[in-house]
Amino acid sequence: MSAVPSVSYSITVRLEVPAGGAAVSQLTTAVEQAGGIVTALDVTASGHERLRIDVTCAARDTEHADQLVEAMRAVTGVIIGKVSDRTFLMHLGGKIEMKSKHPIRNRDDLSMVYTPGVARVCLAIAKNPEDARRLTSKRNSIAVITDGSAVLGLGNIGPAAALPVMEGKAVLFKRFADIDAWPLCLDTQDVEEIITVVKAIAPGFAGINLEDISAPRCFEIEARLRAALDIPVFHDDQHGTAIVVLAALYNALRVVSKRIADVKIVMSGAGAAGTAIIKLLLAAGARHLVVSDINGVVHRGRPGLSGELAWVAEHTNAAGVSGTLKEAIAGADVFIGVSAPHLLDGEDVAKMAPGSIVFALANPEPEIEPTEALKYAAVVATGRSDFPNQINNVLAFPGVFRGLLDAQSAEITTSMLLAAARALAAVVTDDELNAAYIMPSVFHAEVHEKVAEAVRRAAGGPADLPVDTEVAS
Amino acid sequence: MSAVPSVSYSITVRLEVPAGGAAVSQLTTAVEQAGGIVTALDVTASGHERLRIDVTCAARDTEHADQLVEAMRAVTGVIIGKVSDRTFLMHLGGKIEMKSKHPIRNRDDLSMVYTPGVARVCLAIAKNPEDARRLTSKRNSIAVITDGSAVLGLGNIGPAAALPVMEGKAVLFKRFADIDAWPLCLDTQDVEEIITVVKAIAPGFAGINLEDISAPRCFEIEARLRAALDIPVFHDDQHGTAIVVLAALYNALRVVSKRIADVKIVMSGAGAAGTAIIKLLLAAGARHLVVSDINGVVHRGRPGLSGELAWVAEHTNAAGVSGTLKEAIAGADVFIGVSAPHLLDGEDVAKMAPGSIVFALANPEPEIEPTEALKYAAVVATGRSDFPNQINNVLAFPGVFRGLLDAQSAEITTSMLLAAARALAAVVTDDELNAAYIMPSVFHAEVHEKVAEAVRRAAGGPADLPVDTEVAS
Repeated sequence: MSAVPSVSYSITVRLEVPAGGAAVSQLTTAVEQAGGIVTALDVTASGHERLRIDVTCAARDTEHADQLVEAMRAVTGVIIGKVSDRTFLMHLGGKIEMKSKHPIRNRDDLSMVYTPGVARVCLAIAKNPEDARRLTSKRNSIAVITDGSAVLGLGNIGPAAALPVMEGKAVLFKRFADIDAWPLCLDTQDVEEIITVVKAIAPGFAGINLEDISAPRCFEIEARLRAALDIPVFHDDQHGTAIVVLAALYNALRVVSKRIADVKIVMSGAGAAGTAIIKLLLAAGARHLVVSDINGVVHRGRPGLSGELAWVAEHTNAAGVSGTLKEAIAGADVFIGVSAPHLLDGEDVAKMAPGSIVFALANPEPEIEPTEALKYAAVVATGRSDFPNQINNVLAFPGVFRGLLDAQSAEITTSMLLAAARALAAVVTDDELNAAYIMPSVFHAEVHEKVAEAVRRAAGGPADLPVDTEVAS
Repeated sequence: MSAVPSVSYSITVRLEVPAGGAAVSQLTTAVEQAGGIVTALDVTASGHERLRIDVTCAARDTEHADQLVEAMRAVTGVIIGKVSDRTFLMHLGGKIEMKSKHPIRNRDDLSMVYTPGVARVCLAIAKNPEDARRLTSKRNSIAVITDGSAVLGLGNIGPAAALPVMEGKAVLFKRFADIDAWPLCLDTQDVEEIITVVKAIAPGFAGINLEDISAPRCFEIEARLRAALDIPVFHDDQHGTAIVVLAALYNALRVVSKRIADVKIVMSGAGAAGTAIIKLLLAAGARHLVVSDINGVVHRGRPGLSGELAWVAEHTNAAGVSGTLKEAIAGADVFIGVSAPHLLDGEDVAKMAPGSIVFALANPEPEIEPTEALKYAAVVATGRSDFPNQINNVLAFPGVFRGLLDAQSAEITTSMLLAAARALAAVVTDDELNAAYIMPSVFHAEVHEKVAEAVRRAAGGPADLPVDTEVAS
């Protein structure tokens, strides 16, 4: 739920009002008094007696949207017609389509795109499999794959209900990195089956973006696919998040003039995102890292540790402290939460070291109210779009895959993730940097190409983009 | 290999000639004397001394294309530059892309297409799974799936080399039926794995088009997927071919004024296409059908029959004749070959009944040279584009799937296949019909919508196309 009206709860109300009266101005007033914002008011038909108007307004949530409609209905002379939800309108019929790059105007076009001409192209690839990257859509295509087990904050809603997110992801890949992504929502949550399926569909793609697969299954799925495939496999919930968190941390540390090797970092959450963040922080040189999960601080002596959590215990918390999150955070320089709402309050932040940094990334409700955290911390960031410093995966994944595809990389390594984080942080110049601007906008002109360039170079790709116009004959 | 120069073997040769001489006309003459056809001649740079010209010409095959280049090189003063192959140029970088239906201009667009707005759409589908057809791309999307085991006439070339064909198929689905098809080339030829994979990826698609999967595996894969899935599964090599063959037969019978129930039909080939043709002919009322394969005529007494071939023996050849194809064809009204080149000669066709019909569909070399068959038969059709009466799957599959998607069909039935064949045949009017025009062009304005309409009605879909503009809120 948004605190303020948002276009993601925007409705368009078709209504009729008497011509010539004060009804129109009364409508606007009614919406505003009910806490909504009128963003558009279009007269779509006009007569001597009545006007037909489409009123578009932003609400806080669906319940609030209903209240706005009722407020308009209460205006004398207003007849409410159809009410449309702008978000649902954008999703109606799906958000993506397949497009042919060439027009098929006549039999000649047909005979080159399809039989008989296509046979020679097939034979060229059969002879030299690497040509698939030159003569097919493989070069620029990735599969966005989910099993619907951990979709956004909605949980295990299954493959069909996950599809709108995966289509949205495909839209963002195209918009920000000109990548052709196609969603595959799998009707299985069995680890072995998922691995079998992804291995099988891999030949037509140059990369695999795993999405919204629940922990701990996501770790095994990713690791085994990476070992099996000759294209990069990237679980965005893990590594996309880790890149953006590290980039934001680099810039927050610039603001408070501290070094990553020196600061004491306390994390809350050791799921998919948390584990990836921990590993990337360590790779980036963090040395004082304490992790807490739902059972308190993770330390070597804690019973019942296994899998990734055992790894975390082994590689963090050298001092072996135990106890609660609230105890651990005292004196910390940095708090990073990827866990659950309302775990901390202002007093906890007040106990942190001077110049403290708070990343409260639980969605949609953060670990601590950012306004409360800001009373005591030097830098505060959340996952929400209605506060400054949004930690948003969209800053990373388009550029990361652009770089991987341009380098024709067979893998994705930690050094590529680090390069992406450094490049993303560096987009914010010293002149621009301040406590309320540690991350650029996803619409920033340079973000995605800088990330792509960094990943491409780290992948051993060419310094300049290849221009491939050579044609076999 | 084409008998005549074809654009599917078209090259563009960049060359330089002395300005002011006769070199240009000599070039054209040289190409024509070498058996090529100059289709374009563009001067791309001009100076006092020399001209740079792009000469585009059609060849018979790649070897012939090389000969044309050498013929041009032999013209005095000509310097040959880069030689481009037009077919390869069209495939360079792939033929398809993913396209977003909405521009993402600002944060507001982002918040409706992706988080947080998308969450409400996900929840709507989680609550009512049928809404996936309304609120996602599922409605208009199909997967084009191959294992690369029987690609065109090229055989088992594997998934990567099959991709140009599958992309081409996707292009045709879009061009002729506005369907969003995405190719999935599977890195497995194991029946169980293929079934697992297709079941898993099904939720995001409204139909499955299986393509170029070898017999007999294709029968089991299709049958088990049809039983398992709630969307139609269509192996185009089988049913697409069967629809077009039946439509062509309907019209050939119109030409010779015979009825399908009366004619004696001899078939050669009982693979994927042959078996599907046999079943559809029987469903259409054919009663006198004799099938021959590589071991001669199929009859109940033949040893070693199993699977589909046992079914064929059980349901054809009531008289129980045995022997060779050449023996069986004597006195037949119709020959349909989906087998191998050069099995018959003119004498065999001469022995058929008066007003005989010959469909010699083996590709690229037919069972009998069509010019030879035409000396004795009333109607001759092939799979080749350089003779009249091409039997081309592109006449069927786009409309079939359009109809299935519009009806939101969960299956595809024999009655739908029959309806498609009748609709396709009916596109050719009595005024237009003749022995050299039994099938319309794939570019005929009505073909695909007539087929779609027939399938939609047979699937119990609405008589008129639905117009869905209602929006949940």
